[in-house]
Amino acid sequence: MSEQLGITVKKSENFSEWYNQVVLKSELADYAAIKGFMVIRPLGYAVWENIMKAFDGMIKKLGHKNTYFPSLIPEKFLHKEAEHFKGFVPEAFIVTHSGNNKLEERLVVRPTSETIMYDSYARWIRSWRDLPLLLNQWNNVLRAEIKATKLFLRTSEFLWQEGHTVHATKEEADKEVITILELYKKIAEEYLAIPVIAGRKSEMEKFAGALYTTAIEALMPDGRALQAGTSHNLGQNFAKAFDIKFLDKDGQNKYAWQTSWGISTRLIGGMIMTHSDDKGLVLPPKIAPTHAVVIPIKFNEEEKVLKEAMSIKTKLEDANLNVELDDRNEYTPGWKFNEWELKGVPVRIEIGPKDLKKKEVVLVRRDTSQKTSVKISKLVKEVESLLNDIQKNLYKKVKKFLEDETRIAKNYQEFKEVIVAGGFVKAGFCGSRQCEEKIKNDTTATSRVIPFKKEPVKCIICNKDGEMTYFAKAY
Amino acid sequence: MSEQLGITVKKSENFSEWYNQVVLKSELADYAAIKGFMVIRPLGYAVWENIMKAFDGMIKKLGHKNTYFPSLIPEKFLHKEAEHFKGFVPEAFIVTHSGNNKLEERLVVRPTSETIMYDSYARWIRSWRDLPLLLNQWNNVLRAEIKATKLFLRTSEFLWQEGHTVHATKEEADKEVITILELYKKIAEEYLAIPVIAGRKSEMEKFAGALYTTAIEALMPDGRALQAGTSHNLGQNFAKAFDIKFLDKDGQNKYAWQTSWGISTRLIGGMIMTHSDDKGLVLPPKIAPTHAVVIPIKFNEEEKVLKEAMSIKTKLEDANLNVELDDRNEYTPGWKFNEWELKGVPVRIEIGPKDLKKKEVVLVRRDTSQKTSVKISKLVKEVESLLNDIQKNLYKKVKKFLEDETRIAKNYQEFKEVIVAGGFVKAGFCGSRQCEEKIKNDTTATSRVIPFKKEPVKCIICNKDGEMTYFAKAY
Repeated sequence: MSEQLGITVKKSENFSEWYNQVVLKSELADYAAIKGFMVIRPLGYAVWENIMKAFDGMIKKLGHKNTYFPSLIPEKFLHKEAEHFKGFVPEAFIVTHSGNNKLEERLVVRPTSETIMYDSYARWIRSWRDLPLLLNQWNNVLRAEIKATKLFLRTSEFLWQEGHTVHATKEEADKEVITILELYKKIAEEYLAIPVIAGRKSEMEKFAGALYTTAIEALMPDGRALQAGTSHNLGQNFAKAFDIKFLDKDGQNKYAWQTSWGISTRLIGGMIMTHSDDKGLVLPPKIAPTHAVVIPIKFNEEEKVLKEAMSIKTKLEDANLNVELDDRNEYTPGWKFNEWELKGVPVRIEIGPKDLKKKEVVLVRRDTSQKTSVKISKLVKEVESLLNDIQKNLYKKVKKFLEDETRIAKNYQEFKEVIVAGGFVKAGFCGSRQCEEKIKNDTTATSRVIPFKKEPVKCIICNKDGEMTYFAKAY
Repeated sequence: MSEQLGITVKKSENFSEWYNQVVLKSELADYAAIKGFMVIRPLGYAVWENIMKAFDGMIKKLGHKNTYFPSLIPEKFLHKEAEHFKGFVPEAFIVTHSGNNKLEERLVVRPTSETIMYDSYARWIRSWRDLPLLLNQWNNVLRAEIKATKLFLRTSEFLWQEGHTVHATKEEADKEVITILELYKKIAEEYLAIPVIAGRKSEMEKFAGALYTTAIEALMPDGRALQAGTSHNLGQNFAKAFDIKFLDKDGQNKYAWQTSWGISTRLIGGMIMTHSDDKGLVLPPKIAPTHAVVIPIKFNEEEKVLKEAMSIKTKLEDANLNVELDDRNEYTPGWKFNEWELKGVPVRIEIGPKDLKKKEVVLVRRDTSQKTSVKISKLVKEVESLLNDIQKNLYKKVKKFLEDETRIAKNYQEFKEVIVAGGFVKAGFCGSRQCEEKIKNDTTATSRVIPFKKEPVKCIICNKDGEMTYFAKAY
C-alpha cells in the first residue's frame, strides 16, 4: 500500500488530523456535498447496524416497540414547551416551500421528535390501561451545526434512536430512565469496549425541557469527554404542554409522566478515537462487521493454499463468525495486511505453503500485532478465544486510562491547574447555573455528571453545600 | 368489543372507507399533525421490520452493502439530469433557512437519492477494481402529495429502500435490474402473499431519468393496479451528468452503467387491501409480527388454565414462533377474540377447562375462521402446518382473482368496454407516449407493464407494430 493510502500522522502528535484520516481512509465515512453533512459508508453503517441490533434486542425484550413519526414538524409545536423551543429552534432547518408553492405554515426538519410524537400520544392515551406506552424509533435528525464539522461527532445530520415512554407515576418514569441508562452503559462498555461514567446532568447541561437528564460520559484519548448517551425524565412538562392525560384507576384524570432517551452514530466516533492507532481503525470484535480476514500466501502450491483458505472460511462461518477471504491477485499479501489493518478487522489469518505443511495457520491480532501459529484443527476455538481476549484487552486498557486521567480538585485554584491537563476533574459543585457558567468562562470545562452515589462536599465556587461532580472539557 | 372499535363498513360496499378503518382501528398507522403525513404505529412498523429483514438478507447475500447519505440535497444537483429534475422538483420540500438564517443555497429534502449519492460515487470510482459498486439504503423520502392522502399508499413521506449500483457494462446493469426485480417478486408473492405481474414500463410510465424501468404490479380487490416495486436501468444518463467514469481493463476511460431500485411501505398498503376482511386486518404468517395469540378461558380452574396457557406459549416460542398470551382480566374472551381478529393475528389458540381435561386446545385460523381441536402434545406441529396453509391459501385466492380479472381486448372499442369493470386489460400497444396519452385521457387507465416475454401484436390505437401490454386504472 502506498504511503498515501495509509495514515500519515501519529495519534500522539496530531490527534485531530489522525482521527480524520482514520475515518476517511478506512472508508467508514466521507464528507458530503453540503457543508456540515457526512456520508456513512458501508463499513461505518455496518458498525451502526451492529449497535442497532444489540440495543434493539435489549429494549424489545423489555416491551418497547418501534414506530415511525413524520420527519417534518410544524414549527408552532416547538413553541409549546418554552425551554425545548429555546434549545432547538436556533439550529433547526426550516421548510418553507413545496416545489414553487409557499407552505401555509413553516415546518421544521426534526431535530428530535418529542413534539410531533406527543401530539399523537395525547390522542392515543385515555386510561391507565394505555400505560406504560413504550415507543422507540430509529431515524435521522438534523441540527444545523455552526461549528466546524467533526465526522461522526458533530455533523448537521446524524442517525440515532429516540425512545419516548409514558408512565402513570414519577417513580415508574424514574425507573425507566435508569433502566435505559444501564443499557446504554452496557452497549458502551460491553460492545464498544468504552468504559463510561454515569450520573445526572447539572441544570445547565440538562436536556431542554427535561425535569432531569442522566448520561454516560466517556473520556477520549486527547483528554476530552464525550457524552455517549442521555436518558431524560421529562416530568410532566410535555404532558402539560401537549395535554397528555389519563384516567387513573382511582377515577382521577392525571397528567402523565414521560421519559425520552437516545444514543447516536456519535458512539462510532467515540469508538474510533478510543481504540484506533497509527495503522488505522481498531474495531472491538463484538461490533466488528468482519471478525477475521483470511489471506492466502500464494507463492507456490497456489491451488492447495486457496482450497484450505476457503475451507477455513467455511469452518469459521459455521461457528457464526463473519469472515472475508482476500484472494485478489492484483495485490501482494503485504498490501493486503496493511489494508485490513487500516480497516480494523480484529484477526488476520495468514496461510501459506509452509503453514499448510505443518497443518497450521498464523493468527495476527489487530490490537497488539501479536502473531501466533495454531493448528488448523483447533482454529475455530483459537479464533473465538482470541476475539474474546481482544474485546477484554481493549476495554481494560481504556479503563486504566480513564482512572489515571481522573483527578480530584479540592478548591478552584487546584481545579484550574489540573483541568489544563485534560481528563476528568472531580470537584465539589452546588449544581447552580451561575457557578457552572463561571467555571465554563474561566476554563471552557463543564460539568459532565453528578454520580448517582452522592458525595456531599462544598462547592469550589460558592462554598455552599454541593456534591462531588465530574468536570471536563467536552466534545 | 363495542361496534365503534370494530370495522363498521363492508369491504364489498365501501372499499375506501373500509380500508381506512382497517388501517386506523387495527392500529397499523394513524394520521399525523401535518396534512398528507402519517404515523406508522408499532404494528405497522413491525410488519415493515419483517419486510426489511427478509429483503436485506437477500441483497446482502448477493454482496450489496448498506449506507447512509444526507437527507438534504442541493437543489442544483437535481438540475443536472434534465428528466429527473422535471420529475421531482415540483413535489420537493425546500429548506431555505436554518433557524433565522437564510441558507446560501436552497436544499431539497430527498425525494430519492440518485443525485446526492452519485456526487460521491464520482469521487469514489476510479478503476474497474472499484466495480461493481452495490449500495443500498433504508430511509425516509418526502414528496409533497397534492392529491388526497391514502394511508401507506399515498403520503408525503414514506419509508423505503433505495439500491444504487454501478457497473462496467450495460449487460451487467441489465442483469442487476432483473435480479432485483425477481427478489421483489419473491417478497411480494412468498412473503406478502400478493401475486404480481412483472415486466417493463412504457416511456410514459418509466422513472424520470432512467434508460428503462421494470416493475411488479399487483391487482387490488377494487380492480385497481398497484405498482409494488420498481427496478431501473439508468443507462449512462446519470454517469454523464455526474461524471462517473472508470479506467477499464483495456486502459480506456469509460462512463459507468447504473441501476436504482426501490420498494416501500406502500407494500403494506397493498397487503392490507389484498387480504383483510370485514373483521379487520389479515396478516400473511410470514410477515406477521405475532403468529399466534393464546387466550385462556378462565371461567373456573383459572390457575390450571393459565399455567397451561403459559406452557403453550413457551413451547411455541421455542419453535421460533412469536406468541402473545392475552391474560388480561379486564376484558372478556369474546372481546379479545374480536380485538385479535381486528389486528390480523393468523392463529388464535383458545384454552378452557374443558379443553384442558381432554389435553386439547382449539385453533382458530384468521383467514377462514375455521376451528379445530388439537392435542396439546401435537400443538407445535399443528400450528406450524396451519401457518403454512394460511400463507398458501391467501396467495392462492388472490392468484385466482388476478387471473379472473385479467381480460384481453382485441381493439380499442373492446378495451374501452372492459376497462370499465376494473382489473387488468391486455391489449396491443406500440409503446409511444402519444397512444398512451390518448388511452389515459379517454379511460384514465395507463399501461402497467409490457411482459418480458414479448408477444407481437398491433397497437390498438395507431395500428403500428406493438407488444401485448397490461393496462389498468392504477393507484
